[in-house]
Amino acid sequence: MRTATIEPLLSVRRGKSAVEFYQKAFGAEVLSLIEEGGVVAHLSVNGAGFWVADESPAHANFSPEFIGGSTVRIVITTEDTNAVFDRAIAAGATVVYPLKDQSYGWRVGRLADPFGHHWEIGKPLR
Amino acid sequence: MRTATIEPLLSVRRGKSAVEFYQKAFGAEVLSLIEEGGVVAHLSVNGAGFWVADESPAHANFSPEFIGGSTVRIVITTEDTNAVFDRAIAAGATVVYPLKDQSYGWRVGRLADPFGHHWEIGKPLR
Repeated sequence: MRTATIEPLLSVRRGKSAVEFYQKAFGAEVLSLIEEGGVVAHLSVNGAGFWVADESPAHANFSPEFIGGSTVRIVITTEDTNAVFDRAIAAGATVVYPLKDQSYGWRVGRLADPFGHHWEIGKPLR
Repeated sequence: MRTATIEPLLSVRRGKSAVEFYQKAFGAEVLSLIEEGGVVAHLSVNGAGFWVADESPAHANFSPEFIGGSTVRIVITTEDTNAVFDRAIAAGATVVYPLKDQSYGWRVGRLADPFGHHWEIGKPLR
């Protein structure tokens, strides 16, 4: 395969609010935003991309609110674990597991966002 | 935030089989693999990373099989849409939507893998 990127596409309710939340919580930049017929947004956090789209259960795009949980966690790896974690909480995320140096060699903590998606904020320990 | 990566972490049943499937379907390389106490694997497709881990509903890590759908699609952007799509199907993925040039300027198709995760294989059209 020639050069590839892998980016998660998060199904949410209230897509417009979700985009605003990710801007505030993670400093996400909006690369593209379609609102017609449901929100589809391409976002970037320091060059690392992800997508957000309004759910559509008829097309098997389920929000965590619809389905009662999430099947994919989103891992942000950054040197600034504490600052990223704290900023997201200030924006309205809730702590699932606090930041902690783990025996398997990562410093990592887990957040739930107001739309039901879970984020792991971490970095490998030296 | 200093340099960040964003990588999806897919909850699955039969983690070991899932890792083997992603190797076959997408030519994924295994960067790290822990099997003790449940599979946790870090994979890479041409430098683009993602994670696979055995589900743990008690810790809110739900597989699509457990919860009956998926909340995040995984978008692979590559010039080789047809080859990637066909290889994944040969490995056992099923077509949700065939590859097609879309009016919004992407060529994209959607696959379901045997573990219930959905993949969008696409590229922007010029």
